[in-house]
Amino acid sequence: MHSHSLQFTAESSSNGMVERDFTVGDIPGVLWSPASAADRAPLILIGHDGAKHKKHPAMTGRAHLLVNNGGFHVAVIDAPGHGDRPRTAHDEQERAALSAAWAAGEPVSPIVVRYNAHVAELVLPEWRATLDALQELPEIGTGGPVGYFGVRMGTAIGVPLVAIEPRITAAVFGLHWSDALVETAKEITIPIEFAMQWDDEHNPREASLALFDAFASKEKTLHANAGKQGELPRFEADSAVRFFARHFGQAATSLV
Amino acid sequence: MHSHSLQFTAESSSNGMVERDFTVGDIPGVLWSPASAADRAPLILIGHDGAKHKKHPAMTGRAHLLVNNGGFHVAVIDAPGHGDRPRTAHDEQERAALSAAWAAGEPVSPIVVRYNAHVAELVLPEWRATLDALQELPEIGTGGPVGYFGVRMGTAIGVPLVAIEPRITAAVFGLHWSDALVETAKEITIPIEFAMQWDDEHNPREASLALFDAFASKEKTLHANAGKQGELPRFEADSAVRFFARHFGQAATSLV
Repeated sequence: MHSHSLQFTAESSSNGMVERDFTVGDIPGVLWSPASAADRAPLILIGHDGAKHKKHPAMTGRAHLLVNNGGFHVAVIDAPGHGDRPRTAHDEQERAALSAAWAAGEPVSPIVVRYNAHVAELVLPEWRATLDALQELPEIGTGGPVGYFGVRMGTAIGVPLVAIEPRITAAVFGLHWSDALVETAKEITIPIEFAMQWDDEHNPREASLALFDAFASKEKTLHANAGKQGELPRFEADSAVRFFARHFGQAATSLV
Repeated sequence: MHSHSLQFTAESSSNGMVERDFTVGDIPGVLWSPASAADRAPLILIGHDGAKHKKHPAMTGRAHLLVNNGGFHVAVIDAPGHGDRPRTAHDEQERAALSAAWAAGEPVSPIVVRYNAHVAELVLPEWRATLDALQELPEIGTGGPVGYFGVRMGTAIGVPLVAIEPRITAAVFGLHWSDALVETAKEITIPIEFAMQWDDEHNPREASLALFDAFASKEKTLHANAGKQGELPRFEADSAVRFFARHFGQAATSLV
């Protein structure tokens, strides 16, 4: 895609965090920053889950922890077909197929895997262009640490993104099984934290373990918690903040 | 064993931590406490690793984090045949068998498993008598939260101890395979954090996963880090402090 600079379209602030909506070309995004930040700080990119969007409470909640406890900048963009982006006939068709599978009690995995791969293919160049534009901001700059944090579809996007994007040097993934990602994971050598649910009703345990095993990273940590997929404990988001703080040399606070 | 009260035999203090050596009958132990503690605080029992002792740097290091960052009391006793305890002919014979297996490059697991089980059988009543005596101290008291933290032999002792000791309500284990412990683990329902090394050269990966799986606890977390057994990351001790703080309602600090 063509190079576009970042345009801020709205700004607000609350709870010590500045929220700025932006566009890069026709990609809508949001950048959260510490209200007190004058100096440069590392940037964490969040990949939202499927059917969610850049300001879904799960993303806002993670951003709040990363900004207030880690001192990071946090950016999220709407993936194609999500949030403020238009949906194509293909998006509608896949969403309908997913709903029908849910309603019929049939496996959703085949649809989720193929649709996530489709979104990932579209969003990868968009994420790279967004990162180019974000690094032109003086409070981020080029050469500083960049992390990636995403579970479910955020992992389906993040694994191929991290594999081709050398500016990302630490990543938190999770809640994803190995199909279609394991070969790409073998190319990844940066530090990884991977969260899985031990009793995940959608992602087979052995496949999640196989995906963790596939990362070629010398430093990698698996966190497996008892419970179903929707029961990922809140403290895993705190753990992600600590993971980035440890690797990016930030002094994280209030992280119990 | 007979009921004995706790006798303090030495006291010192450094780095905000008070260290008091004690005996309960002929069991030598050490109690570390916050220097500033006036009120009651939860107690964490540490089970030391095989061939180590109550004041080995690994135990002192964990105690330091638990006391200074969690505000806990921490107690360790020398297991039979370890530290200040006399060694029997059987202890010497098993140590010699272990050394011979190491030297010959033969598997050490069969010796470690049977010796750990032997030590566990002896030390279980000692730990219970020590807990009785510790709870008579006004700064600990009865009815307060008690945790257990031990890896390797500390897990071989801790799993059967936790299974029979209802006063222990949260535990951190690790670096142990399932043989001989999996049936006992099935009886345990308290919150558990279990640390394993993904590339452990002594404990087969599948066996460690099977042991984690066996705990009947509704709340349990597995932490698996890349690396061999000796490479268990230092940040897992911080994680243990946060685990106990979360379950015992302490406000942990400085835990990056």
